[in-house]
Amino acid sequence: MLSLCRVVRPLAFRARRCAHNPAFSHLNTVTEEDVAHFSNILAPSSVFSTIGSNSVSSNDIATYNVDWMGKYYGKATTVLRPRSTAEVSEIVKWCAKRKIGIVPQGGNTGLVGGSISLDKEIVLSLGAMSKVRSFDPVSGILVADAGCILQSLSEYVAPHNHIMPLDLGAKGSCQIGGNVSTNAGGLRLLRYGTLHGTVLGLEVVLPDGTILDQLSTLRKDNTGYDMKQLFIGAEGTLGVVTGVSILTPPAPQASHNVMLALPRYDNVLPLFQTVRRQLGEILSSFEYIDRTAYDMAIDHGHSRIFNEEELKSTQCFVLVETSGSNKEHDEQKLTELLESLLTAAKPLIVTGTLSQSAAQFASLWALREGLTEAVQKEGKPYKYDISVPIADFQRVVDVLRDQLKSRGLYGDHAVSKVMGYGHVGDGNLHINVIAKHGYAPEIEQALEPFIYEVVASLNGSVSAEHGLGSMKPHALHYSKSNVSIDWMRKIKGTFDPLNIMNPGKVLP
Amino acid sequence: MLSLCRVVRPLAFRARRCAHNPAFSHLNTVTEEDVAHFSNILAPSSVFSTIGSNSVSSNDIATYNVDWMGKYYGKATTVLRPRSTAEVSEIVKWCAKRKIGIVPQGGNTGLVGGSISLDKEIVLSLGAMSKVRSFDPVSGILVADAGCILQSLSEYVAPHNHIMPLDLGAKGSCQIGGNVSTNAGGLRLLRYGTLHGTVLGLEVVLPDGTILDQLSTLRKDNTGYDMKQLFIGAEGTLGVVTGVSILTPPAPQASHNVMLALPRYDNVLPLFQTVRRQLGEILSSFEYIDRTAYDMAIDHGHSRIFNEEELKSTQCFVLVETSGSNKEHDEQKLTELLESLLTAAKPLIVTGTLSQSAAQFASLWALREGLTEAVQKEGKPYKYDISVPIADFQRVVDVLRDQLKSRGLYGDHAVSKVMGYGHVGDGNLHINVIAKHGYAPEIEQALEPFIYEVVASLNGSVSAEHGLGSMKPHALHYSKSNVSIDWMRKIKGTFDPLNIMNPGKVLP
Repeated sequence: MLSLCRVVRPLAFRARRCAHNPAFSHLNTVTEEDVAHFSNILAPSSVFSTIGSNSVSSNDIATYNVDWMGKYYGKATTVLRPRSTAEVSEIVKWCAKRKIGIVPQGGNTGLVGGSISLDKEIVLSLGAMSKVRSFDPVSGILVADAGCILQSLSEYVAPHNHIMPLDLGAKGSCQIGGNVSTNAGGLRLLRYGTLHGTVLGLEVVLPDGTILDQLSTLRKDNTGYDMKQLFIGAEGTLGVVTGVSILTPPAPQASHNVMLALPRYDNVLPLFQTVRRQLGEILSSFEYIDRTAYDMAIDHGHSRIFNEEELKSTQCFVLVETSGSNKEHDEQKLTELLESLLTAAKPLIVTGTLSQSAAQFASLWALREGLTEAVQKEGKPYKYDISVPIADFQRVVDVLRDQLKSRGLYGDHAVSKVMGYGHVGDGNLHINVIAKHGYAPEIEQALEPFIYEVVASLNGSVSAEHGLGSMKPHALHYSKSNVSIDWMRKIKGTFDPLNIMNPGKVLP
Repeated sequence: MLSLCRVVRPLAFRARRCAHNPAFSHLNTVTEEDVAHFSNILAPSSVFSTIGSNSVSSNDIATYNVDWMGKYYGKATTVLRPRSTAEVSEIVKWCAKRKIGIVPQGGNTGLVGGSISLDKEIVLSLGAMSKVRSFDPVSGILVADAGCILQSLSEYVAPHNHIMPLDLGAKGSCQIGGNVSTNAGGLRLLRYGTLHGTVLGLEVVLPDGTILDQLSTLRKDNTGYDMKQLFIGAEGTLGVVTGVSILTPPAPQASHNVMLALPRYDNVLPLFQTVRRQLGEILSSFEYIDRTAYDMAIDHGHSRIFNEEELKSTQCFVLVETSGSNKEHDEQKLTELLESLLTAAKPLIVTGTLSQSAAQFASLWALREGLTEAVQKEGKPYKYDISVPIADFQRVVDVLRDQLKSRGLYGDHAVSKVMGYGHVGDGNLHINVIAKHGYAPEIEQALEPFIYEVVASLNGSVSAEHGLGSMKPHALHYSKSNVSIDWMRKIKGTFDPLNIMNPGKVLP
């Protein structure tokens, strides 16, 4: 059974939270003595605490205690911003000795409350560790501190004609250590694969303070268990990632994109097959946007891509990107694709817009990447990030909308919009349910566990890329067997027997 | 200190092997009762034992007790060939109860003695589990029994226009479960990445007989720790891989290859950069072959690719392969590349041969893929499979040859050839030292730990893709820190506290 005390509730529920969370009774509260110790081992600018002689106000650390959606609120009294791996190690050793919980925090851009303190844990922010350690322009291997912002790393490797193997909407704030810890997917996964393939090595401070240095810069190394893999996607529950070695691919010489309007959802799958066959190795993204999401983007100021006439018969959209080494060849492939699509006896698309300039290229992407922000402006979103067979994408959205209708919760008085968008090529759909007037228990009860049961019936994943954080541990069993969950617990127990590392996250 | 009893020695050393290996004193010998039990739970055709009422001769199980190089000899009395995961589970449960060691064996094509019994373990052959469980031609996701032969799987997906994401010389014998358990690299890694990225799920029988079913067919699933990763490359020491879910890429529409002759090794790195820049996303292999290896292939009957005149000024070769979706575009890219290489002011190559037919394409690959077999015909090989910076490839081969010369061991009386070939794009070099008259202690002593020390001085890996098996556990510390090795032990202890799973392998 799910204890209400164990999960951070949305705003509407905050009053219900327990003052003393029994799930954290094994942990100690941070004391003045602890803060004094941290002040001894760290620079003064690295310690922020509402207790002790140099205390700050809770406002001063407010940004560390709330996620960017404003959905998860923490109550950490103390935030530490170490500047080196050695400092992280010292902090963790002390916390292990004193049984103080630690929440590692990167850019705090997660969507499942994984980087927010649930009880009395400290926040260990990696933001002050933001140096590139090395880059080899021949191999493209980059070694960086965990706190490096993804976009800064993209800019760092760009002059060497390399790109980061991942890209996501939050790139301006998210940090590479957080990307690794949450196994971030994003917009380039179709082309460059997962971080399990592109991360070559990690440096991790383990829950007893030991520094595990597996910061290899080798593409191939079969000397024993590939333990770094365990920390990719562990959401900071097995240790603190402090350094990352990652393979950056050569930058494409040419990039193009095209937005296609489709008369109905059923065409998405055959369109994907056609596009993949004709574009082959230059296909780098195939993103799905349903009509509701598109209209919302336009409502929030995005310039129109299609005219009213074209939109009349359009049910959904696909954004296709190519990245290749020869502009002429790529343009020819794309032109041939569009011609064959537009002249087909039974056309899969209504129409399409091919970007003709860097500005247009950016504009098409801006619509897709801006959806998350537009959602925030619409109301309070319930976000579900699922893997299901591509053929079922829209059906899941429709079923969820019907469920809300049947409970009388669909409309401007409750849920104003239910929409789907996501990475078709990866089978990953983002569903956003927008509560116009804020989070409400009856909406959540209508959505959950209903949505998880739908996903489970399709053998899908209840978290394709966002992770479990504090939002979904209770739903883990919809995607993993009891044997798997038992073994996760054993792994957690082996690395973190005191349960001080991001307690209450990932495992139910 | 390395106990002589703990490592299977080459043929020359066999007499020295201990009758009772103290490293295996925790394990029991297989008895008639055990064989009777196995005969009860398995079909008669699944049990082969030199003991018990239906005993066979040791000759009948000889192929399970020697690796294909004839370097590692085992002394298993009992070989089991289960036909299902449930049968594997029953076998393992019994062995756990009785403390009997288990050596999981796939195609037995490994090069480090990982699939040969070291003492009194049984051999658990996966060869009778060879069914494809499912294949989705849209996503390309294949689910197969561990015992499926790699080439059979390639042939299975070919009519659906897909290919396996890995390819290696042993494809006609090696099994997908063994590929996964050894994290096999091979010839396509440059293009399709490692198995850590392409394996989507595994079914594993754990050392207590529990079946861990993580046979996901999802490209993205961030629900908790990605435990399957631990079994990729664990060489059967953490459990028996019984099923594999793997992402197969769409088959390229066009493939080309070209063999380039280089005047000197120093040109390899700038050539790699040029080729990668010009061919971009269609580059699928970049294989290095030194002059000694090339000459050996010709000596063993491979048809000549270059004439005597061209060879006079050639020090080494590179085999480049492209795979793309548009024949015309690919040919244009290749032609432009060759023209620019041949007309350069300071040419990086002497000459090149572009295959003009399927037969020529196959012939160029046959030279590269046939090297392993040619080496076997030359004598007894010491094989080192290392990751080092590309710029140091040939220097490592030269240094090793010099070392043998300085000990008076280079020449037809001892080591007749020292050669290097491998996957430049992955930084992976295969060094073969050929003992003309068989393995000999003075040769091994000249080579080891010398070669490992050289690799360690270059921050390389002592095993890029072959694994550690029983050959290299003692060399693990050259590539991994003590902290890493300690944690490998903890992982091993968590999964296999009785140490029955492939004992004596991987960990020192």
